[in-house]
Amino acid sequence: MKISELSSRSGVPVATVKFYVREGLVASGERTSANQVQYDETHVARLRLVRAFIDVGGLSVAGAKAVLAAIDDESLPFGVAVGVAAHSLPVLPASEGATTGRGKRDLEALIAERGWIVDETNAGRALTARVIDDYAALGREDLITSLATYADAAEAVAKVDIQLVAEAAGRADQTATVVIGTVLGDALFAGLRRIAHENAARSQFPVPPEGDIS
Amino acid sequence: MKISELSSRSGVPVATVKFYVREGLVASGERTSANQVQYDETHVARLRLVRAFIDVGGLSVAGAKAVLAAIDDESLPFGVAVGVAAHSLPVLPASEGATTGRGKRDLEALIAERGWIVDETNAGRALTARVIDDYAALGREDLITSLATYADAAEAVAKVDIQLVAEAAGRADQTATVVIGTVLGDALFAGLRRIAHENAARSQFPVPPEGDIS
Repeated sequence: MKISELSSRSGVPVATVKFYVREGLVASGERTSANQVQYDETHVARLRLVRAFIDVGGLSVAGAKAVLAAIDDESLPFGVAVGVAAHSLPVLPASEGATTGRGKRDLEALIAERGWIVDETNAGRALTARVIDDYAALGREDLITSLATYADAAEAVAKVDIQLVAEAAGRADQTATVVIGTVLGDALFAGLRRIAHENAARSQFPVPPEGDIS
Repeated sequence: MKISELSSRSGVPVATVKFYVREGLVASGERTSANQVQYDETHVARLRLVRAFIDVGGLSVAGAKAVLAAIDDESLPFGVAVGVAAHSLPVLPASEGATTGRGKRDLEALIAERGWIVDETNAGRALTARVIDDYAALGREDLITSLATYADAAEAVAKVDIQLVAEAAGRADQTATVVIGTVLGDALFAGLRRIAHENAARSQFPVPPEGDIS
């Protein structure tokens, strides 16, 4: 198919398709004549993946490139692919501000209590510690008390995530499952949490006649 | 304090402080002489909040401005503040691509099954449906099977989130709890999920001697 059809099939504007090809996120098409390049179904699928990572997963172009490289590189040890996915957090916390060590201490206690085995370099550590630091700096000790509930929820979700990886057939599919599930799973949880918030708020705070919770 | 001290106390560069003041995210200081403006502890606290929303919560400047306005506006009905927080998703899904209606159908079924009461305009609906659509378009039906586990986790977390709101003293604190907890809670869960992933992967896939999961 021509680039115009690839664009309409994938919902990605032609200029953006060209940008992704230039950046190496999507493979070049096959040049069939001086002024024509042909694309196929693999390009459609790849563009969908790129858009899902960027639009829904909130990754930057550079972040999407890194996780796509992990999917593509068959020689990459599986553990490294898991590591790349772990680093695919859309937002990396600035190191400034996290000076008290409170978040790091609370997180260490949580990890020890649960007997979790987690490397020092796991990207989730910095983000979790930073949120705890922020809650503390904002004087919101009450929000820190929810840590155990969040950890329980994360543990239950992670167990299913990794189970799906184990069931995926073959190395390439396993890596794709890790990367896609890690990036889009954040968005899935955020969406469901907003829905569950509204439902819980409706029971906890019945809406007055003039109110509008939506 | 002078702007230089405000900058070092909050970890926000002077130029960025000036930008936030210009954009209305942070109140102006008090002009005490022709070339001096004084700031106080309320400015330090506000800058911390702005940085937490932007750095950790992944909000844009416009998004941070909207949720800060919800915290500031005492006249805003509480339900509207909940709504603003619900719309604070760092990444809003593009409408393109979600053409099959598969995600919408699966989500409706989930909501009906659980007896959840959720407005059509809840921002979590579009995001959740989009992730399901993406999984389907990528041929990952296996990932869609995890929906119930994610919904259970979101429900448990949301219950505690809203409970904390109910316990917060006074209208201003309740709004702050909703907004801060909604935005930073996404980051907290994402961080803990990365940690729990590594722990679960270590049991499921014992690391070979040369492997490095970190």
